[in-house]
Amino acid sequence: MEKEFYIPQGYRFAGVNCGIKPGSTKLDFAMVVSDKPATAAGVYTQNLNCGAPVVYDRERTPGRGFHVVATDSGVANACTGKVGLFNARKMAEYAGEAVGATGDQTLVMSTGVIGIHLPMKAIANGAEKAAAKLGSSLKDFEKAATAMMTTDTKLKTVSREKTLPNGKTIRIAGMCKGAAMIGPNMATMLATLMTDAMLEPEDAQKILRDAVEDTFNCISVEGHTSTSDTVLLLANGAAAPDPLAREDLAAFAELLKDMCRELAPMIPNDGEGVSHLITIDVFGAPDRASAKLLAQTVANDALVKTAICGADPNWGRIISATGRCGVPYDPSKVSLKVNGYLLYENGAPVPFDKKTVSDAIRNSRDTSFEIFFQEGDASIRFWTSDLTVEYVHLNADYTT
Amino acid sequence: MEKEFYIPQGYRFAGVNCGIKPGSTKLDFAMVVSDKPATAAGVYTQNLNCGAPVVYDRERTPGRGFHVVATDSGVANACTGKVGLFNARKMAEYAGEAVGATGDQTLVMSTGVIGIHLPMKAIANGAEKAAAKLGSSLKDFEKAATAMMTTDTKLKTVSREKTLPNGKTIRIAGMCKGAAMIGPNMATMLATLMTDAMLEPEDAQKILRDAVEDTFNCISVEGHTSTSDTVLLLANGAAAPDPLAREDLAAFAELLKDMCRELAPMIPNDGEGVSHLITIDVFGAPDRASAKLLAQTVANDALVKTAICGADPNWGRIISATGRCGVPYDPSKVSLKVNGYLLYENGAPVPFDKKTVSDAIRNSRDTSFEIFFQEGDASIRFWTSDLTVEYVHLNADYTT
Repeated sequence: MEKEFYIPQGYRFAGVNCGIKPGSTKLDFAMVVSDKPATAAGVYTQNLNCGAPVVYDRERTPGRGFHVVATDSGVANACTGKVGLFNARKMAEYAGEAVGATGDQTLVMSTGVIGIHLPMKAIANGAEKAAAKLGSSLKDFEKAATAMMTTDTKLKTVSREKTLPNGKTIRIAGMCKGAAMIGPNMATMLATLMTDAMLEPEDAQKILRDAVEDTFNCISVEGHTSTSDTVLLLANGAAAPDPLAREDLAAFAELLKDMCRELAPMIPNDGEGVSHLITIDVFGAPDRASAKLLAQTVANDALVKTAICGADPNWGRIISATGRCGVPYDPSKVSLKVNGYLLYENGAPVPFDKKTVSDAIRNSRDTSFEIFFQEGDASIRFWTSDLTVEYVHLNADYTT
Repeated sequence: MEKEFYIPQGYRFAGVNCGIKPGSTKLDFAMVVSDKPATAAGVYTQNLNCGAPVVYDRERTPGRGFHVVATDSGVANACTGKVGLFNARKMAEYAGEAVGATGDQTLVMSTGVIGIHLPMKAIANGAEKAAAKLGSSLKDFEKAATAMMTTDTKLKTVSREKTLPNGKTIRIAGMCKGAAMIGPNMATMLATLMTDAMLEPEDAQKILRDAVEDTFNCISVEGHTSTSDTVLLLANGAAAPDPLAREDLAAFAELLKDMCRELAPMIPNDGEGVSHLITIDVFGAPDRASAKLLAQTVANDALVKTAICGADPNWGRIISATGRCGVPYDPSKVSLKVNGYLLYENGAPVPFDKKTVSDAIRNSRDTSFEIFFQEGDASIRFWTSDLTVEYVHLNADYTT
């Protein structure tokens, strides 16, 4: 049975084809519109060469009074110099004005090829077409989510509904895209999260940052932090106009993080060419930053990722990866389980039946690594994809 | 015409099959013997889970009085706990005693699968067989080099001859192996370098470290620093018994680095499944460490490496990679050339004919990136391989 999907009140959505890639009929322009002025928060890539839309949005969030998020897929508008900044502002103006708002009440996101200028006629066309098709059905929501996708093969949407301690029932929904150039450092892809609760801008920013840190910042495909990563949160108060405070805010923050924890792994699970979603749990690390670096080094390791693709229980690559990342630990106090099988205990190999473990990897989409250190109390969960022949095929011929 | 090969005086070599992988006839046990006691220096992996042979050699170098380097290929003897340390010592004893020396006069190296114990009967057998076949011809030298190889497809040997300021003519020769799990942090593979000059242990260590830093530490295949990386230098004084000093030592150091500069890129050029050797030159970085991190981040980037595999001039991935590594720079002062074509200048794209650049990449084994910053005077050269479908095939099924 399908899970029920909860669309927050007061939002309308559209996804259209505006012609970013001439000849393509793919949906490539998305709009999310809040009729009430919404608080907005954003978390962005730490890549120095951030895209022009990131520069535009970062200057404006956190803040109040937003009505529109417009997204194109196909051209990232990154590494495009001053022309790119001009085009990002123009895109915001086109989208805002198409629904009776302004460029300053609009946030923009772009994803696709780096170093190409936005085709502004297509963008203007997209804003007009999307504004004419806005609706609040699940189908409209999914069309907007589809229009954000590039090499994604699956829709990535989730939602939550909850009655807060104050008695008000609120909703949160999120859509995101991402299948490659995924390496967490702040956010790592595009996502729009929206709620009909109301939040103060500083509260929105803080709880968004906290949620991202444990979710979207704990995923990777190949570890490349993109120029364009953006997670936006809109809060319009349509279900409850008073800004959340204290226990309501805490309950909301928990709900938001819980939703992101479902949404984020959808990205590596749809990683380009992926055949396994790998969940890495690190236990007993000296501190959180070390736990993350250990997990991330394993997650980005081509040798680990190809082994899992081949259902090869070559666990030495996992242990070797943890040893090369610079986190100090006692190698004689490390243990490892793969899919629940203990393969390495206190720095020495444990005899195991290779075929049994290989079959366990081959026969499940989900692979689990549990890596146990004895250095402290920090733990973390991190998600990544395996590395397949199809990933190389897809990326060897992306622009040509 | 073949280049002349200069084998240093006073060394003998053998490469034999000892049966590390039952049923295989591949040469898998190498011995290099110096009849005179040689000074030895070593540079080793920084991986915390270093192999038992690394532990064994590291305790003994730099030092004097060495006669043997014994190497097996097939089993890395890493992540093998106390049994592994015992076996490494045993391997040194077998090899040393087979030529009338001791375990303490012997250094050992192992490469292959992690987490498997050395088959000690095969190792004892290898020591006996190799001792019986030692010779000083080029063929013997090449057999030893062949016996170090795992997934390598090409022999990696170089040599130099030079008359030093003191009038003595000396030789240096080197052999190395490596095709994957290549990510520089100290050394990144196995290499034995040998000279018939004499060196004080501390001098040998210093000039070896300097040479490695600019050569073997500036290569990668997928960026994974192995558990077993080792570069050894033997100096036996067979051509000139007095330890080198001052201008002779400086001339020798230059010759050694020059030789390593030829030897090191042979590794990524023979990287698993490689179709392009990529040479990355970074100019104008704030300092050497930053220059290296910039080059290394580009070198290890799966998106950059797949693009070159596909002859796709998708330069945005190169610029984006430099922006994600944490080195601060002004993005509006960066320029990029690929194979001599200017594609990005001062932070903005330069129009170019895609087919021309794509053809240039496709039609040459060698790809060049020149990345220009305006932050300082530091520059570096780094070598890497592209990422191909064959790499994934080779690594998805390595142990199973």
